[in-house]
Amino acid sequence: MSVEIITIGNELLSGTTVDTNATYIAASVIEIGLSVSRMSSVGDAPEDIINALKSVLPGTKYIIVTGGLGPTDDDRTADAAARAFGRTVELNQEALAAIEKRFAGYGAKMPFSNQRQAMLPARVEIIPNPRGTASGFIIEAAGREFIFMPGVPAEAEAMTESFIIPRLKEQSGFKQVILSKSLRVFGLWESAIQERLDGQIQEGPGLSLAYLPHFPEVRLKITGMGADPEKVRQEIARAAAVIQEKVGEYIYSVNDEPFELVVGQLLKEKKATIAIAESCTGGLISHRLTNIAGSSDYLQMGVVVYSNRAKVELLNIPQSVLDEHGAVSEPCARLMAKKVRELAGSTYGLAVTGIAGPTGGSTEKPVGTVFIGVASVEAESVTQHRFFGGREQIKLMSSHMALNNLRKCILQQ
Amino acid sequence: MSVEIITIGNELLSGTTVDTNATYIAASVIEIGLSVSRMSSVGDAPEDIINALKSVLPGTKYIIVTGGLGPTDDDRTADAAARAFGRTVELNQEALAAIEKRFAGYGAKMPFSNQRQAMLPARVEIIPNPRGTASGFIIEAAGREFIFMPGVPAEAEAMTESFIIPRLKEQSGFKQVILSKSLRVFGLWESAIQERLDGQIQEGPGLSLAYLPHFPEVRLKITGMGADPEKVRQEIARAAAVIQEKVGEYIYSVNDEPFELVVGQLLKEKKATIAIAESCTGGLISHRLTNIAGSSDYLQMGVVVYSNRAKVELLNIPQSVLDEHGAVSEPCARLMAKKVRELAGSTYGLAVTGIAGPTGGSTEKPVGTVFIGVASVEAESVTQHRFFGGREQIKLMSSHMALNNLRKCILQQ
Repeated sequence: MSVEIITIGNELLSGTTVDTNATYIAASVIEIGLSVSRMSSVGDAPEDIINALKSVLPGTKYIIVTGGLGPTDDDRTADAAARAFGRTVELNQEALAAIEKRFAGYGAKMPFSNQRQAMLPARVEIIPNPRGTASGFIIEAAGREFIFMPGVPAEAEAMTESFIIPRLKEQSGFKQVILSKSLRVFGLWESAIQERLDGQIQEGPGLSLAYLPHFPEVRLKITGMGADPEKVRQEIARAAAVIQEKVGEYIYSVNDEPFELVVGQLLKEKKATIAIAESCTGGLISHRLTNIAGSSDYLQMGVVVYSNRAKVELLNIPQSVLDEHGAVSEPCARLMAKKVRELAGSTYGLAVTGIAGPTGGSTEKPVGTVFIGVASVEAESVTQHRFFGGREQIKLMSSHMALNNLRKCILQQ
Repeated sequence: MSVEIITIGNELLSGTTVDTNATYIAASVIEIGLSVSRMSSVGDAPEDIINALKSVLPGTKYIIVTGGLGPTDDDRTADAAARAFGRTVELNQEALAAIEKRFAGYGAKMPFSNQRQAMLPARVEIIPNPRGTASGFIIEAAGREFIFMPGVPAEAEAMTESFIIPRLKEQSGFKQVILSKSLRVFGLWESAIQERLDGQIQEGPGLSLAYLPHFPEVRLKITGMGADPEKVRQEIARAAAVIQEKVGEYIYSVNDEPFELVVGQLLKEKKATIAIAESCTGGLISHRLTNIAGSSDYLQMGVVVYSNRAKVELLNIPQSVLDEHGAVSEPCARLMAKKVRELAGSTYGLAVTGIAGPTGGSTEKPVGTVFIGVASVEAESVTQHRFFGGREQIKLMSSHMALNNLRKCILQQ
C-alpha cells in the first residue's frame, strides 16, 4: 500500500527551511512495509492546499499532511481541508479540551488565539499531540485516509511514532520484516563499483541494493523484506558476500560505521595507541577521532605543524630535510610519522603533509599533492597522492586516506 | 512567473536522504523574483518520473528537475524524459565530449559506464556541469522549459548558480534588485533576539527579516527588494543599524562570514599569530582555522593534548597542577594558553579543556564543563562554561566560544 506525503508551508517553498518531516515520515512508513509514491510541498494559500489534496496519485491509500495547524493567521490547513472535502468547520470539543489541558499543565490560561487550533472540519478523528497544542486529525474520503499533523518537527515526529505508525501497521496487517545492512566503500567511485557488481546481485521485491555516494566514499545499502526474518537475514548475507568478493578490499565497514570509529575500535582491540602529526589536514584527523566517545583511551596526542618552525620545534624535523625536499615530501611525511610516534610514546604515528590550495601549488607539486606517513614500532611507510577539489574536499579526502592507511597498517600487524 | 521543483530518487522517498536540492533551488529562484508553486519528490521508476513531468501545475513556466542522471542502472531520468516528451534517446556529442574531457583532466580514461550519461533525449540544450560528469539538459515543450540536473548537491548547486539563475533572470526580464545582508549572532538564542527586536523593524513587501538558527548561532537575514538599488541598500542599512543597536554585542559578523574567517582576518590585520592547545575540542579549532585559505600566515601551531602525558610533555604543564586541580580546571586552561603561546612564539595562545562526555563527568564537574584560556603577550584570561548537548555539540559550542573569546581579546588590544 502506498503513502503520499504533503508538507505545507511558505517557508519550505522560499528555501528558508529544509523539509525534514517528509523524510522522517517516509523512513517510518517504509519500516512497516508501506511505500511512498510521492512527497510534495506546497504553500500556505488555501487554494494550493486544496489543489494538493484533490490531486493525490491514484492508488494511494494514505495521504499524510503536515503543517498549517498553528494558532496564527497564516495557518489555514484545517479550513482548506474542510473546503476540499465539502465539510463545515466546527469547534471540536476533544481538541479544545486537549489544548486547555496543556495550558493548565503549564499553569497558564489558554490564550484566545489557541482556540483557533480546535476549529476543525466536521466528523474527524482526533490525533493526540503529546508535544504541543495542535491536535492532528483524520478525514476519511473515497476509501482513503487523509492524516493531518502540525509542521513542528518534534510534534510531527512524536505523533507519527505514537499514533500513525501503530495505526497504519494494524490496518495494513503488516507481518513482514524489513532489514538492511550498509557497507562503506572507500577508494572506488560509484561507477566503478557498479561495473564490478553488474549483474551479480539478484534484486527483486525481497531484496534491493542502493548506491549512496557520500564524498569521499560510497555507501552500499542492502535492504531485504520478507515474512521470515531468518530468510531475510540470509538473503542479505548472501548479497553482502557477493559484494565482499567483488569489492571487499575497498570496504572498511560492514556496519555503516564511520572511519574514525572503525579505526578507534581496531586500536582498542589491539590495545594500541596513536599520535597524529597534521600539516594540510590542519587538525581534522584529530577532530574526527575525538568525535568518538572514549577516544582518550587511544589518542595520545595530536600536533598541527602548519609552519616549518612548528615542524622543527615540535617534531625535531631537521631543517636540512625541509631545505632539501620541502615540507610536502616523502622524507618529511616519513619523519613526521616517526617523530610524533616517538614523542608520544604511542604504538602508531600518523602524518599528513600536502598542499590543500588554492595557492601554494607548483608544476612539480600541484595543489592536491599529499603525502601520508604511517609509523609503527618496526617501520614507516609513506604513500603519495594527488587529490582534486577545493580546500575542504582535499582536507576531507586526505583525512579519509590517512585513516584508511592507518587501518591497513594495524590490520597487517 | 512560477517554478516547480521535482527531485528524483528512491533515497528521498525511503527517508534515507533529506532533500536539500529543492531548498537550495527555491532560495535561488526567489532571489530573481520568481515564485515556487510546488516541490515534489518521486522515485527512480520511469513511470513515476513521466507522471511527475506530465502533471506539473498549470501556469508553471519552469520545471526544475534534479536526480537520476548518474552512470548506474537506477539512473533513468533521461530515458523517462524522452518518453514523456515523445523523443528518441541519442548519444549527445556535446555531453560525451564534456565527460571525456573531465576524465582526461584526472589523467584517466572514461569508464564505459559513464558513456550512459551522454545518452540524452533528442534536441536538448546542454547545461555544462562544472563539478561532475553528468551534463544537465533543457527540453522546451508547450511553452515551458523542463530543466534537468544531476542530484549530487554540489553539482546541482554549481549548475544552478552558473547557468540556470543567469538564464532565468534574463528570460524573466527581472529588473528589481533583491539585496540581502546576513548578520551572525552568537550568544543569544532566537527567542531572546526576537524579544529584543520585537516591533523594531518595519517589515513589508520591500523588506523582510528572517531568523535562521544554525547551532550554535543564529543568522539574521535582512532582505530588501525594489527598483532603486540605492534605496534598497538604505532600507537594509537602516534595519541593520536597528539590529546593531539592540543585539550588537552578540554580532560577530555583518557579512555572513564564519568565525574562523573573522578571526583570521583580525589576526592578519594586526599582523598577529596564534597557537592553539586543544583538549576536549580535539583539533576542531585548528581544523576550522585551517579551512580558510592563507591561514598558514597566522596559525603557527596546534597541539591536541588529549592525555595528561601530552599536556606534560608537549606543554610542560606541571604534574602538580594536574594533580591538584585536574586537567579540566582554570589553572590548567590558563597554563595551556600561556605555554602553547610561548612554545610557538606567537602573539596569542588559545586553549580549551573540558568534558565533552558522555562519560567523564562528576557532580563537581559535570559533562559540558569547559574552560577556555586566551593568552596574549601581557596576560592570560580564562572563562568557565557549562554547555549542554551531545559530544559533537559540546565540541562545536566550545570551539565557537573559544574563537569568540579570542576575537574579543584581539579587539581589545
